[in-house]
Amino acid sequence: MENFSFQNTTKIIFGRGTQHQVGAECRHHARKVLLHFGGQSIKKSGLYDQVVASLIDAGVEFVELGGVQPNPRLALVHKGVELCRAEGVELILAVGGGSVIDSAKAIAMGVPYEGDVWDFYSYKTEPKTALPVATVLTIPAAGSESSDSSVITKEEGWRKNGFTHKVQTPVFSILNPELAFTLPKYQVACGAADIMSHLMERYFTNARPVELTDALIEATLRTMIRNVPKVLANMQDYDAWAEVMWSGCVAHNNLLDTGRIGDWASHGIEHELSAMYDVAHGAGLAVVFPAWMRHVYRQDTNRFVRFAVEVWGLRNDYWNPEATALAGVQALQDFWVSIGMPRNLAELGASPEKIDQMATLATGGDRWTLGNFRKLGQADVAAILRGAV
Amino acid sequence: MENFSFQNTTKIIFGRGTQHQVGAECRHHARKVLLHFGGQSIKKSGLYDQVVASLIDAGVEFVELGGVQPNPRLALVHKGVELCRAEGVELILAVGGGSVIDSAKAIAMGVPYEGDVWDFYSYKTEPKTALPVATVLTIPAAGSESSDSSVITKEEGWRKNGFTHKVQTPVFSILNPELAFTLPKYQVACGAADIMSHLMERYFTNARPVELTDALIEATLRTMIRNVPKVLANMQDYDAWAEVMWSGCVAHNNLLDTGRIGDWASHGIEHELSAMYDVAHGAGLAVVFPAWMRHVYRQDTNRFVRFAVEVWGLRNDYWNPEATALAGVQALQDFWVSIGMPRNLAELGASPEKIDQMATLATGGDRWTLGNFRKLGQADVAAILRGAV
Repeated sequence: MENFSFQNTTKIIFGRGTQHQVGAECRHHARKVLLHFGGQSIKKSGLYDQVVASLIDAGVEFVELGGVQPNPRLALVHKGVELCRAEGVELILAVGGGSVIDSAKAIAMGVPYEGDVWDFYSYKTEPKTALPVATVLTIPAAGSESSDSSVITKEEGWRKNGFTHKVQTPVFSILNPELAFTLPKYQVACGAADIMSHLMERYFTNARPVELTDALIEATLRTMIRNVPKVLANMQDYDAWAEVMWSGCVAHNNLLDTGRIGDWASHGIEHELSAMYDVAHGAGLAVVFPAWMRHVYRQDTNRFVRFAVEVWGLRNDYWNPEATALAGVQALQDFWVSIGMPRNLAELGASPEKIDQMATLATGGDRWTLGNFRKLGQADVAAILRGAV
Repeated sequence: MENFSFQNTTKIIFGRGTQHQVGAECRHHARKVLLHFGGQSIKKSGLYDQVVASLIDAGVEFVELGGVQPNPRLALVHKGVELCRAEGVELILAVGGGSVIDSAKAIAMGVPYEGDVWDFYSYKTEPKTALPVATVLTIPAAGSESSDSSVITKEEGWRKNGFTHKVQTPVFSILNPELAFTLPKYQVACGAADIMSHLMERYFTNARPVELTDALIEATLRTMIRNVPKVLANMQDYDAWAEVMWSGCVAHNNLLDTGRIGDWASHGIEHELSAMYDVAHGAGLAVVFPAWMRHVYRQDTNRFVRFAVEVWGLRNDYWNPEATALAGVQALQDFWVSIGMPRNLAELGASPEKIDQMATLATGGDRWTLGNFRKLGQADVAAILRGAV
């Protein structure tokens, strides 16, 4: 086990009806908040009205800023920063999924910073402080509701960069599985692929032994595999949704990282894919991750055998561990296809012509490598994408 | 899944050599600390000198108070409160195991409170605030290093009471598995029984479904079962110790409670046992828990079958689930005996004459019940203890 430091301070308020607590919780931190959200879905579902009523009941003033898009944009972050400064906002309340939360985190870091918040996402400097962020989660997927990271897209040059710093960890997050009942099924499946990818990025490590976290990750993956088909079969299945929503948070709150070094190459490759084609992050991961696995599994075939047996419940072919390992990868891909995810770049709507360009961008033309389980150069990334055609 | 609120703010600093960071971490919170510890073991091992050097290096002043006993006593807590007030201490630094940490928590709550700190442990009132507590853990067992609870024994009337409140959650805890290398093996085994009991108190619940936390608890129990024999066979086995130490913390940081209602009857019964005979908490649990299981398993035989299969790897006897359930209990007891824990009250040195007295005390003469998985009255507690003779 590697040495580590772990702290996650987010207060999770989980369960039916918990959105009505949002005003009282905000009041512990702020007199005035920015209510930040995406499109019309929270108005149609009634959640917007419930949040507003709860804020008013608690005597919390608010201004609002909607319009967050998937792959949240820097321009709206700038707008939010200006608004918060002008209005004396003390907390950013994100009501939505990962994109809304990430946009809120960027605004929260931007308000007290004299320069451009993109300085953080381009690794020029680090924030000293931030406004508190809180969330009412509507989509189990990104895990941003209790993470210390966010991803923002700069329209100019279409750069999509992630940034990790503890000042953006939400102070509280409200998770009510009922709020997910009305999601489009494709979005549910994309969220599931994202959650499972967060778990697998951590799982595939060369750190050894890491028995506790291996077993915790496997437990969380199995919970996803059992419950995602249940919610897709019955979108009102509260019990199954509760498992998925809590798994999505646990998957990314850094507990399952402890003592390990995660891989994250598949996320790096997918970032190029979604920057190039604006595809959903989860759908991109569903295409990239199995191709990555087939490219790298010989790095530690035993770990892939364990993945097949412990996560997917496959029988080990003791005399042919490679076959077991590859059967595990196939089981993952078949599962994702069964919930509606694409199998390859063609189904994702991404043409193979741009593979070399993406591989160049992902590795800076071989100036840096991707991943930790196996360090990948430009040729590896191109081979992985070609394996996903 | 039940609605829940979860927050654990303790910063965990884990790994080799991390005790040397204690001064710098303290400095974030305080200019002057109380260095609180037990007996001579941290002086013999050199840990005391390392902590003192680190505090001096960081420019942190300190006063010290040693002498914490197992089942930590109220009189020393009072002494600590007086000392902290007189010296202007701003943080209590516990260097030791659960008893030292619990004593530190009580002192931390007592300093800013005008009344007697026992008021909290006798549920008369709640603390509004506390000094920060930090720990350097030497014994993986109680989980107090990141928990919001503590247990104090009042000498007068020999009452041993627990109290839970978030103000006592440590601000940081340093966990270096190397610090456990010199523990007596009996203490290691007692710690293992305590950790496994924390997991099982949470596992045996009527809340259903709670799939994620079921699987996470099972994963942690399996990690304990694999690694405790390794550390007893080779006390220098860092890797195995790391798994045990991190499991002990995860077992009790309340994550594995989320959405469930734990039982805690075995802890209640054991408190009477250790108050009556001053036995080690873990050893008492090793005697009480299997007896509790045999008394209550019919409440949900399926859960006990799952325990046997998923935790102990037993084959299910599909036509005789009771036999599978009881084989799981037997496997637990055999495991504990194999690491040096007592099998029954006799081996614990507790005479059967006092069973009725303990059952009366544990339930206030049937004025209250114990446990949640099955509510236990005085007759149940007596039957459980008689089953452990």
